[in-house]
Amino acid sequence: MITIRDRVRFVETDTMGVVHHSKYLHWFEMGRAELLRAAGISLNELMEEGILFPIAEVDVKYKNSCVYDDEYEVQTSLANVNRIKMEFEQRVIRLRDGAVAAEGLVRNVFTDKNGRVTRISSKWMERLQKIYEVDNTKE
Amino acid sequence: MITIRDRVRFVETDTMGVVHHSKYLHWFEMGRAELLRAAGISLNELMEEGILFPIAEVDVKYKNSCVYDDEYEVQTSLANVNRIKMEFEQRVIRLRDGAVAAEGLVRNVFTDKNGRVTRISSKWMERLQKIYEVDNTKE
Amino acid sequence: MITIRDRVRFVETDTMGVVHHSKYLHWFEMGRAELLRAAGISLNELMEEGILFPIAEVDVKYKNSCVYDDEYEVQTSLANVNRIKMEFEQRVIRLRDGAVAAEGLVRNVFTDKNGRVTRISSKWMERLQKIYEVDNTKE
Amino acid sequence: MITIRDRVRFVETDTMGVVHHSKYLHWFEMGRAELLRAAGISLNELMEEGILFPIAEVDVKYKNSCVYDDEYEVQTSLANVNRIKMEFEQRVIRLRDGAVAAEGLVRNVFTDKNGRVTRISSKWMERLQKIYEVDNTKE
Repeated sequence: MITIRDRVRFVETDTMGVVHHSKYLHWFEMGRAELLRAAGISLNELMEEGILFPIAEVDVKYKNSCVYDDEYEVQTSLANVNRIKMEFEQRVIRLRDGAVAAEGLVRNVFTDKNGRVTRISSKWMERLQKIYEVDNTKE
Repeated sequence: MITIRDRVRFVETDTMGVVHHSKYLHWFEMGRAELLRAAGISLNELMEEGILFPIAEVDVKYKNSCVYDDEYEVQTSLANVNRIKMEFEQRVIRLRDGAVAAEGLVRNVFTDKNGRVTRISSKWMERLQKIYEVDNTKE
Repeated sequence: MITIRDRVRFVETDTMGVVHHSKYLHWFEMGRAELLRAAGISLNELMEEGILFPIAEVDVKYKNSCVYDDEYEVQTSLANVNRIKMEFEQRVIRLRDGAVAAEGLVRNVFTDKNGRVTRISSKWMERLQKIYEVDNTKE
Repeated sequence: MITIRDRVRFVETDTMGVVHHSKYLHWFEMGRAELLRAAGISLNELMEEGILFPIAEVDVKYKNSCVYDDEYEVQTSLANVNRIKMEFEQRVIRLRDGAVAAEGLVRNVFTDKNGRVTRISSKWMERLQKIYEVDNTKE
């Protein structure tokens, strides 16, 4: 599991005084980028090779609201991976009390620039495999 | 089913050249607001009465990407409602070819300003009931 | 002057209960896109030709706040144009009372994909010239 | 001068492959929050006292683009302050090469919940005065 920490930005809140539900997708995205970085995978490099990684599904359950200036942790595990898709389990923890703010599952596919599903090369697959094993042994 | 139409804003796209997946939550939100407006329910009035409507779950499947300037339609149905929650089925249609861009389910609860689940008054419930019946007879 | 109308989205508000100041830049952008469309210029076509149009300056004065669900009008005029830049005067009117919500100036340059300033072709320049003349005679 | 560092989020980029110009306003906002935090001023506390701090003007010049994953520094100085307004000078530095990405001026006023301009109490004013003096002696 890879974790990052950050703080709620003012622009991420809405008129109800809490973080807008769409912003958790931004935080999850930062968490996935960090997991991939830990695996030695840069999204910029993937894009240079012509590989895109559009999201195919998000399923998020919201449990407790964050407010402006709250510190939070994003926890990300690679739950499933093969050469055409990745599946992540993600969670946001509100640090002031340790409550789960949101948790969910995000699945992406790999495609070429025309949106056709593509198999990633073994270079990338090996790195993903390695981090998948760490995630699914340690925990 | 209530529909609205709009056009992709430049700021809604990302480096992959398509609409960022989080933006569909904004469009779904506009669709729900329109359904509630059609039912005679204003989110501003609810908030003035001290009723909030935080999102409890979103589950979105992304099928086809929209790009900058694409016109789209958001289709929204009230799938389930009672005095403490609403559940919506929503879909985004890409109008240039009629393809489903995304479809999903969004569930919210009603709470007071302290985040405690609250039952809405019968005034609101009757209006929701009415639009629920339309949605679930017509289709 | 080209005008568009829209309605404040929930996600555009913040904890102060009003539209976040950054969102006016999104609305201005929609206004400029509409002016260019009226001139027969599509940003997608420009990008296909390898021409980008990064913003070089924004100067916005905020006068009156918009809240959730407010209807607004964006007014856009082309104040200045040549083959390497455009300058727009823009204003947001809050329709419930006709108050100016924000007004400002936005300037962009034309560049190639490497960020080097580029002169647009006469095809595009003629169209811009035409709408510039309309804007600066009529008003 | 107060500085913070962060990294470009994927969602902050657009179809031109660079950070959307509106996002710099989010970064500037984070920089101002940090300066106020350093002064012992919490925006949440201000809001609890019924004081809002709407933006009255932003004037930003964009110099060099940031792309996805770029690290950046936001530099913030309090250029001017009195009991009804603050004025900040802000700059974003792109850390890979030290280039100025954007620089600008942001001015806010203090208002009550009805939008009427309000004078802040001497408790807050003294703290602002102190950080103003640091900023305008050191540099």
